[in-house]
Amino acid sequence: MAELHPACAPLAFLLGTWQGTGTGVYPTIEDFSFAEEVTFAHVGKPFLAYSQKTKDTGTGLPLHTETGFLRPQGDGRLELVLVQPSGIAEVLVGNVEGRDIQLVSTAVLVTDSAKPVTATQRRFWMDGEVLHSSVAMAAMGLELQHHVVSEMYCLS
Amino acid sequence: MAELHPACAPLAFLLGTWQGTGTGVYPTIEDFSFAEEVTFAHVGKPFLAYSQKTKDTGTGLPLHTETGFLRPQGDGRLELVLVQPSGIAEVLVGNVEGRDIQLVSTAVLVTDSAKPVTATQRRFWMDGEVLHSSVAMAAMGLELQHHVVSEMYCLS
Repeated sequence: MAELHPACAPLAFLLGTWQGTGTGVYPTIEDFSFAEEVTFAHVGKPFLAYSQKTKDTGTGLPLHTETGFLRPQGDGRLELVLVQPSGIAEVLVGNVEGRDIQLVSTAVLVTDSAKPVTATQRRFWMDGEVLHSSVAMAAMGLELQHHVVSEMYCLS
Repeated sequence: MAELHPACAPLAFLLGTWQGTGTGVYPTIEDFSFAEEVTFAHVGKPFLAYSQKTKDTGTGLPLHTETGFLRPQGDGRLELVLVQPSGIAEVLVGNVEGRDIQLVSTAVLVTDSAKPVTATQRRFWMDGEVLHSSVAMAAMGLELQHHVVSEMYCLS
C-alpha cells in the first residue's frame, strides 16, 4: 500500500468505496432512481482515480458508469478528466474547500454518435458520514441544470 | 455474468485481463521499459470498458495508467474515449478488421497543468495468442510519432 501523495491530502476524505442511492431528472427523459457505487483510489501519485457505476434498483441491471482522474493543483485547486461510455469526455476545474468539492467543465468532447452535452457541473460533499454527489448538465440544446444527486456511505 | 451485446461481437477477442511488457521512446525523454496490465470488460451494453496500468519492472512502482470506453458503431467502425491522469482526455475513431484495431484521435483535450499532447494514434492487434498494443503521440510540439509498444498474454 503506497503512502498518499501529500498533494492528495485535501482529498483523503474521498478515499474508499462508497455505496448508496440517487435520483435523476432531465426535461428530455423520465425521472429515475438508481443504486450507485463510487471508488476513489490512489497509487501514491498526485492524483486520485475515480470510478462510478449505477444500477437499476428494481432489475439490478447496469445503468450509468464513468471513470476519471482527479488532479490536485495546490491551494485547493483541482482538475478532473472524466469519460462516459456514452461517448463523452470532460475536462473540469474547481476547488476543494474542507470536505466540499465543486467543479465546472472547461471543455466537453463528444463522439459523433453521442448525445450533445456541452457543459457539466459536478459536486462531491460530505455531510457527517454521508458522501453526496451531484451532476448538473447542459445537454440536448438545453441550459445547464440539475441532473442527478446521490447519497453514499463508505464501505472501506 | 451478462451476455455480450451483439454490437461488441467483433471486439470479443479483447475481453479479459492481459499482462506483459513493453518499451517506450520519445525524443524528449529517456527510453524506458515497463510491465503492463490491460483489462477489457463488458456489462452487456454496447461498449467495452478499457483500463490499463504499467509499472517499473525494476522497482515495481506504478508508471502510467489510463481508462476509457470502446464503442462499436457497426460495420467495424469504432469510437474510443479515454483519459489519462496526466490531465489528458482523448476522442478517437477507427476500425476493427479481424483482430486488428486502429484508431486515430479526432480531438485531444488537456488540462492547464498537463503536457501539450495534440494527437494520438492507437493500435491493438493479435498475433496468435499475443495481444500487441501501440501508441503514437504528438506532444511537446513534435509531430505524431511512435511512443510505446507492448506484448501481452491473456490471464482470464
